[in-house]
Amino acid sequence: MTEDNFELAVVQVPSPAQGEFLVKNLWLSIEAGIRTMMHEPDVEASKSTIPLLQKGEPVHSFTVGQIIQSRHPRFPKGSYVTGLCNWQEYFISDGARMQIVDADLAPVRYYLGIMGAMAAPAYFGLLDVGKITDGETVVVSAAAGSIGSVACQVAKLTGCRVVGITGSDEKVDWLVNELGIDAAVNYKKADNLQDCLKSACSGGGIDVFFDSVAGKSLEAVIDVMKVHGRILAYGALHGYDGGDSVWPTNYLKIIYKRLCVKGLSSLDYLNRLPEYHAQMSRWISEGKVRWRETVYEGIENAVPAWIGLFQGKNIGKMLVKLGDPEQIP
Amino acid sequence: MTEDNFELAVVQVPSPAQGEFLVKNLWLSIEAGIRTMMHEPDVEASKSTIPLLQKGEPVHSFTVGQIIQSRHPRFPKGSYVTGLCNWQEYFISDGARMQIVDADLAPVRYYLGIMGAMAAPAYFGLLDVGKITDGETVVVSAAAGSIGSVACQVAKLTGCRVVGITGSDEKVDWLVNELGIDAAVNYKKADNLQDCLKSACSGGGIDVFFDSVAGKSLEAVIDVMKVHGRILAYGALHGYDGGDSVWPTNYLKIIYKRLCVKGLSSLDYLNRLPEYHAQMSRWISEGKVRWRETVYEGIENAVPAWIGLFQGKNIGKMLVKLGDPEQIP
Repeated sequence: MTEDNFELAVVQVPSPAQGEFLVKNLWLSIEAGIRTMMHEPDVEASKSTIPLLQKGEPVHSFTVGQIIQSRHPRFPKGSYVTGLCNWQEYFISDGARMQIVDADLAPVRYYLGIMGAMAAPAYFGLLDVGKITDGETVVVSAAAGSIGSVACQVAKLTGCRVVGITGSDEKVDWLVNELGIDAAVNYKKADNLQDCLKSACSGGGIDVFFDSVAGKSLEAVIDVMKVHGRILAYGALHGYDGGDSVWPTNYLKIIYKRLCVKGLSSLDYLNRLPEYHAQMSRWISEGKVRWRETVYEGIENAVPAWIGLFQGKNIGKMLVKLGDPEQIP
Repeated sequence: MTEDNFELAVVQVPSPAQGEFLVKNLWLSIEAGIRTMMHEPDVEASKSTIPLLQKGEPVHSFTVGQIIQSRHPRFPKGSYVTGLCNWQEYFISDGARMQIVDADLAPVRYYLGIMGAMAAPAYFGLLDVGKITDGETVVVSAAAGSIGSVACQVAKLTGCRVVGITGSDEKVDWLVNELGIDAAVNYKKADNLQDCLKSACSGGGIDVFFDSVAGKSLEAVIDVMKVHGRILAYGALHGYDGGDSVWPTNYLKIIYKRLCVKGLSSLDYLNRLPEYHAQMSRWISEGKVRWRETVYEGIENAVPAWIGLFQGKNIGKMLVKLGDPEQIP
């Protein structure tokens, strides 16, 4: 995936019809998972479960925008909305799959990250599916990313020993010294990731792995998992761009160790977002969670941001700022 | 693995010391999983979780035998015992990890199969872990084998639609016309296993997969699984002999479909065997389950039986008969 795969187009903004509204996008979320929509239609990995982008279609992403014209009774002018939209500065919506966000609970751009639908499975996955408990050892991959950093902090607040896997010394430093997790491993400097994980876990083995990467790190973690450990499989960052390293080659150990591997999706937690927002905004206001963003400016920088995501250029949430809110009279 | 890897040895049978007893083995269980102990010590797949056989050591298997001399108060002469023993006609035991079996509940050789520790996870896995319910679609691999045929019948008795994957038309016939499952697919004749499974499942998708094989059949099943389906991973028959086909290459779909993959082991159900024996002997006496055995005679045929297992030569449980019980005065 290179810049040549993208094209910036200028189109006329239409006016909203009755039952519609016009949104000015303020913030664009840059998300790895969207990569899975960008396949040739014959690519096996994307068959049957993921809708594919057609050539010429705008790329999808979650955005936060402001309604600047409205002919829809439940979506008043001036309010902020989020949803899976496109890389666009303006768009017309009839409200389907759009949610109004509460700007009093948190800055609106937080709804693309720590308060967003993509981060919520870190919370519900660890607590409800992984059933993490005080004293357990939790490992998180892509730990300095937007979802990983939420997972680290949810596990830490639950009383777990938390070990992150990340890709730079700067991120290791941020995770350990600012987020306060117990240890972090820079996988790019680890000759033997298993051994690094073993010592980061104080030799005790891993109870729960929250994974957004798959591939070699998943393989190494499986080797260090305890019997009956749980793997929460939320993404396969290293596999999205056609890499063959996504598949763990030690499947037999899933059997020998009686591990549980459970796939997670944000789709399964959409109806529990209010519960998540309430808990997370409380933690934010109490200073119990920290949050970072890497911001690119302007829609023309969406592609560099996107490519930068796969190169690990972000700490925390990767965002593109598209515009400022308007003063609504 | 060939006959050349094995050697038959004749040794003196010792006498039991105080607290020991002498067992005459009557039946030898031939099990695929033992293959994982037969690696060079440097083979990755067997590291750290599976004890390896050393060169010259007898092969382990579950056996059923009769105590013909005893100097142990809890293991009287004449009684039948089972445990993980060796491919041996006679052996001395101090009773550690040996269980007395109840010959009134079922023929003693059944404790190596349908009443055995290896079959119990089919029952507990489907009911307690897979939580199968009436009306769900369950697929079973190695369906005509000893564990698969138990899984098929447990699922059928629970009210599920049951589809087996097996390797010959004779086995398809046995599964459908004698065990009464809904459909069976001969994977050796299937050009496209996914399509065969889809039609065998009436297009409805798979809720639960009980898998002892891994590899290509696991991959095909993952493609046909429903969202939130459950995979009970009990074995990797196709991978034990060093095949590279054990790893499913569609790991991403485990995430997209939010599947749950759970490794099973008979070790986790040893303390629930009495519960299993009670249920299974009831079903057997009521004629609700059927059972087949493929029997080789004499310890000199243990190796052909073992190699035959991986060639699919068995229907039902593969056993070697080592001897007849003695009249104990």
